[in-house]
Amino acid sequence: MEKFQHGGQIYDEFGNAVNFLDFSANINPLGLSEKISETLTENFAGVVNYPDPNATELKNSISRRYKVSQENLILLNGAAEFFYLFCNVFRPKKILIPVPSFSEYERAAKSSGAEVEFFFTKAEENFQLDVKKLLEKNADCIILGRPNNPTGNLISIEEILKLAEKFSVVVDESFIDFLPIESVRNFLTEKIFVVQSLTKIFAIPGLRLGFAVAEKNFAEKLNFAKDVWNVNFLAQKAGVAALSDEKFLQDTRNWLEVEKKYFAEKLREFDGVKVFEPSVNFILIQLENKKIAENILEKFREKNILVRNCENFTGLGGRFLRLAIRSREENNLLLKSFSAIITNC
Amino acid sequence: MEKFQHGGQIYDEFGNAVNFLDFSANINPLGLSEKISETLTENFAGVVNYPDPNATELKNSISRRYKVSQENLILLNGAAEFFYLFCNVFRPKKILIPVPSFSEYERAAKSSGAEVEFFFTKAEENFQLDVKKLLEKNADCIILGRPNNPTGNLISIEEILKLAEKFSVVVDESFIDFLPIESVRNFLTEKIFVVQSLTKIFAIPGLRLGFAVAEKNFAEKLNFAKDVWNVNFLAQKAGVAALSDEKFLQDTRNWLEVEKKYFAEKLREFDGVKVFEPSVNFILIQLENKKIAENILEKFREKNILVRNCENFTGLGGRFLRLAIRSREENNLLLKSFSAIITNC
Repeated sequence: MEKFQHGGQIYDEFGNAVNFLDFSANINPLGLSEKISETLTENFAGVVNYPDPNATELKNSISRRYKVSQENLILLNGAAEFFYLFCNVFRPKKILIPVPSFSEYERAAKSSGAEVEFFFTKAEENFQLDVKKLLEKNADCIILGRPNNPTGNLISIEEILKLAEKFSVVVDESFIDFLPIESVRNFLTEKIFVVQSLTKIFAIPGLRLGFAVAEKNFAEKLNFAKDVWNVNFLAQKAGVAALSDEKFLQDTRNWLEVEKKYFAEKLREFDGVKVFEPSVNFILIQLENKKIAENILEKFREKNILVRNCENFTGLGGRFLRLAIRSREENNLLLKSFSAIITNC
Repeated sequence: MEKFQHGGQIYDEFGNAVNFLDFSANINPLGLSEKISETLTENFAGVVNYPDPNATELKNSISRRYKVSQENLILLNGAAEFFYLFCNVFRPKKILIPVPSFSEYERAAKSSGAEVEFFFTKAEENFQLDVKKLLEKNADCIILGRPNNPTGNLISIEEILKLAEKFSVVVDESFIDFLPIESVRNFLTEKIFVVQSLTKIFAIPGLRLGFAVAEKNFAEKLNFAKDVWNVNFLAQKAGVAALSDEKFLQDTRNWLEVEKKYFAEKLREFDGVKVFEPSVNFILIQLENKKIAENILEKFREKNILVRNCENFTGLGGRFLRLAIRSREENNLLLKSFSAIITNC
């Protein structure tokens, strides 16, 4: 299972959280909002009761905030749950996965026995998806990220709609709230399934929370294939608090707009480091200089910094790193460490 | 979906928790232990990180406390998750379900397209399972509770082993920790899957936490069919705290031993009410008097008490109620209300 490792592995062999500066998980560095903290403190005694199986408050909040009809909603114990649920329910025979991308797409596909065909995008072409070529493929369904993790590539809604003329399309928009752009959710058809994480933008990956939207009958099928308590009580409460907090969302977007430019620019100043244009809160870089790449994880780790090795991303060699974009101070710490590592090569 | 309603529905139409005295959900009335409360308070800020995908601490705790090998373990976002996971992974064509029993068995079976055959047990026979007759049936698998919800019936390990000579047997031992008896876990074969909830005994249904054990290769398959973060960070922490607390478990068993006898005895004093022998923290009663049964839920509700209607249990008519066993004071409150309801009939 080595292959399906993920970022955010801050735990040691005993399961204790180690105090790394974690650039390996793409979590909003603004952290827990005051509203969520308050809600958790107020509600933790409520865990003695079952979560509301109808999740009325949370569904109302999501419906209002994202302008989706409740009959299209599937509430998730984290966005990743969706890929398994989808593959279990619809049992597609063949799934097309543009890579590099989030490894759970492949893992979920394989767990349901589906044949997986990878569609390789190239670093030289900035990992652009060639939709025309994709449409020449045969498959029941395609799973892709918008923006895509780890490349940051942002496929257009128009292109998704084209793909949906041929395939069922699962669009993973887990990072889209970091940008003030339109979601594919608003263009729902029977062929489109859209997944949204609430844990990255609201910094609650430990609580697990996400949702998906699908055509009404499909949503019903998907909901029937899981138990009704999959979103725990505190995640429901935190979600409601988070979605009422427009200011936090705006602050996040304001931070990112400035910081992604700054971080990318500074990284570009290093020789032998290719920086791919970030769209949301992570940057993919390629270490063109082999010497720099050598033991780079360990070198960062010695400086108490965790970065995401990209070796186990299908379609990406061992000389790529994915860096979360964090606060100015933290990014500067990384840049300083990186500079020292490069100098000592 | 009316059919698949559950107890513990304390939420109103707006999703607000109402302060009912809840006899409809079978949760340990000792409530949150001090250890769990402390752990939640100490750890809630940790939700900004992903849960440990290896769940090292929790697996160690479960492995130690329940004497199971980690290679047999499947961690669950609540016990109910297992029935869906099992049906999704193994796709049994035909599932045998003795009824009345927990409705999620049927729902999970149907969600995976399995044919369900019910095996009806009778009130007149105290819902005893006739294992000989069961063995005459043909099916890929059988799902049953030990003890069974809502009847309280406790099938022996010997009988489970007999069933496992013919069927794959999913044994739901979600309530077994309330009793100082041996688990089927210790008799694992390729045909036996054992599910354990940690939310009922430790009063944390809102957090969602359970586990299952299966033969090593099957456990691997089951684990591969879900994402690795399905047990949230706080549930992992609470589980570790709970499993180190032998005193809480002992206090619970001591309370139950006394209280189930008391509650059953007092309920038996009512005319027209048949009481089935409880094994764990709930009692099934049959309202033989039609007049008493009329609008009984509403009558209890007017007294701010929630009881579990059994109308939607397959194989159980509308004149059964399931009552959680709570503290002496709370049980007396129910008895007093019940007495008033009967008197006014």
